[in-house]
Amino acid sequence: MNFKIAVLSGDGIGPEVIQESVKVLKAIAESYKHEFQFNYASVGAIAIDETGNPLPDATLDVCKDATAVLFGAIGDPKYDNDPSAKVRPEQGLLKLRKELGLFANIRPVTAYNSLLDKSPLKKEIIQGTDMVIYRELTGGIYFGEKKLSEDGKTASDLCEYSQFEIERIAHLAFKAAQTRKNKVTLVDKANVLESSRLWRKVVSEVAKSYPKVTLDFLFVDNAAMQMILNPSQFDVILTENMFGDIISDEGSVIGGSIGLLASASVGDGVALFEPIHGSYPQAKGKNIANPIASILSAAMMLDHFGLSDEAEAVRQAVNKTIDKGIVTKDLNGEAFVTTTNIGDIIAGTI
Amino acid sequence: MNFKIAVLSGDGIGPEVIQESVKVLKAIAESYKHEFQFNYASVGAIAIDETGNPLPDATLDVCKDATAVLFGAIGDPKYDNDPSAKVRPEQGLLKLRKELGLFANIRPVTAYNSLLDKSPLKKEIIQGTDMVIYRELTGGIYFGEKKLSEDGKTASDLCEYSQFEIERIAHLAFKAAQTRKNKVTLVDKANVLESSRLWRKVVSEVAKSYPKVTLDFLFVDNAAMQMILNPSQFDVILTENMFGDIISDEGSVIGGSIGLLASASVGDGVALFEPIHGSYPQAKGKNIANPIASILSAAMMLDHFGLSDEAEAVRQAVNKTIDKGIVTKDLNGEAFVTTTNIGDIIAGTI
Ligand SMILES: CC(C)[C@H](C(=O)O)[C@@H](O)C(=O)O
Ligand SMILES: CC(C)[C@H](C(=O)O)[C@@H](O)C(=O)O
Repeated sequence: MNFKIAVLSGDGIGPEVIQESVKVLKAIAESYKHEFQFNYASVGAIAIDETGNPLPDATLDVCKDATAVLFGAIGDPKYDNDPSAKVRPEQGLLKLRKELGLFANIRPVTAYNSLLDKSPLKKEIIQGTDMVIYRELTGGIYFGEKKLSEDGKTASDLCEYSQFEIERIAHLAFKAAQTRKNKVTLVDKANVLESSRLWRKVVSEVAKSYPKVTLDFLFVDNAAMQMILNPSQFDVILTENMFGDIISDEGSVIGGSIGLLASASVGDGVALFEPIHGSYPQAKGKNIANPIASILSAAMMLDHFGLSDEAEAVRQAVNKTIDKGIVTKDLNGEAFVTTTNIGDIIAGTI
Repeated sequence: MNFKIAVLSGDGIGPEVIQESVKVLKAIAESYKHEFQFNYASVGAIAIDETGNPLPDATLDVCKDATAVLFGAIGDPKYDNDPSAKVRPEQGLLKLRKELGLFANIRPVTAYNSLLDKSPLKKEIIQGTDMVIYRELTGGIYFGEKKLSEDGKTASDLCEYSQFEIERIAHLAFKAAQTRKNKVTLVDKANVLESSRLWRKVVSEVAKSYPKVTLDFLFVDNAAMQMILNPSQFDVILTENMFGDIISDEGSVIGGSIGLLASASVGDGVALFEPIHGSYPQAKGKNIANPIASILSAAMMLDHFGLSDEAEAVRQAVNKTIDKGIVTKDLNGEAFVTTTNIGDIIAGTI
């Protein structure tokens, strides 16, 4: 089959990890006789440097024209500590999510058996963890009105949600639960926030269409504890944008390395696949970044294409490699292989 | 010396843990020849049941008339899953914070050596952890305008901050850092939120008055990871209300039990002392709750009164008791003492 893939490498280690997932996709194309067309375009700090715009129109066109977007990472420290910067790399990603209608970010969190001892959490705590987080991605405080008073002394952000925005992602979460352990946990702060109370109301309504799935509720502060105390209690976690950002990054340490975690962002049309980790500028150019999160994101993309055998082949190649103890520096500071090495090995296994 | 203490036991296990900290305070009063006058008043769900108001005027008067407030916990499940409830226990606490001008919530997080193995985190990760979280408590999304559209289909909450609100807590955090490890970490989401950018700007300004203290910044999603990956890197964490709620509850698992963690809320006048844990209704009336968080909150209150020897005596009595392995059920499911037992033992040690 024939697929057009928009490749947005971005900043920091983005290009390095993307190079390896493209390598793996090429190996899949060859073995399974598919044709993947890779269309590269720039985003983030590098796009600002080139064009002044973190999401140039040309890039957006490449994405809209594609079957899916393979995304690296964005962000550069030179913007982070400059509160007055008008243009920021992150705006590129946020705009892309909005423009492509990517309203659901899906992040699986699983404990790899061979890596159980890499986690800061005890083995007996993380064993058996197998959850997936559904984070709303195009609403809430990320996209609500932002204000800075004329005198610069007051600033505000509006967190707003509509029934429609909540319903559509809730349906995805319940459908996912049906193929898993039949449990959805809504994370909110309904004891304080009006928007959270709307979430609770709407999600409770949606739940009625999925009688086999149990729905429970957790305040976000309690959820932040439960993720560490007992992560294996969760099946599908459903939550709004900001809480999802925090909880899913927290969850990312369960598996022992954020360098292993993939995500899919889906919505109205074109979907986007990206590793959880950011641009990690300190590691840039050192050939030490872990490309597995990006490779597993590519596997999620294959699933999305309906190529589940191919996706499984990628996952198995990754598992085999990890099981042999072949890992990057983040997972073993003493005996490690480089970013390009591990990409070669995984591609070779396919 | 003579002190008036408002005692607001609240809901769930609140009254049980408060009974023990009052016991301990009475032991202190006797040993050190102080006079503590305890004025009880109701708050939370129980106050709603009694008066329809989670913070009756009479309770507020008792608090305003006191030197400090000793607070239990509030919250009752019957309100949590009812999005349409107009009156909620939490409103009592939020209003109290606002009325008393308690703009800073201070939560120390330390790893007890004798309890290192109780934490879900590995010993080597938590060893040496000694941080204190300064959470802004009377601003942000908790208190910004809340709206529900007429048709009930859209809801919003406004997160708003002013320079003044940020400055006053920033000064407290920097002053604390000067007596500790000279480091302040501001947790925000400045790559997305306008209000976070104001925090970054104002806190950077305040930092100039404390040249010995280093200031660094962490996005809240990254902070949620770093709290688990490497908690001993932190000294003073400074953050806004909602992020502080999440991060400090997450931090509470480091010590092995939320049942050990005290907090102080300070501001313009009267201060308030409360355990981190909530009302934990499942444990109510079973005499199994851990009163140590409340007892250590009472110790923070003694410090606040300027009675540091007395505060130290309470802490030592707690440490001795824990070191002997005398703990409640949350810390040892097999060999445990009751809530009232451990209160007696700690009071007896003084
Ligand atoms: C880069 C940033 C804007 C982004 C977010 O907060 O959504 C990132 O943290 C993520 O989770 O994808
Ligand atoms: C009960 C609730 C409103 C409160 C809060 O969110 O502030 C609690 O979680 C806390 O942290 O003291």
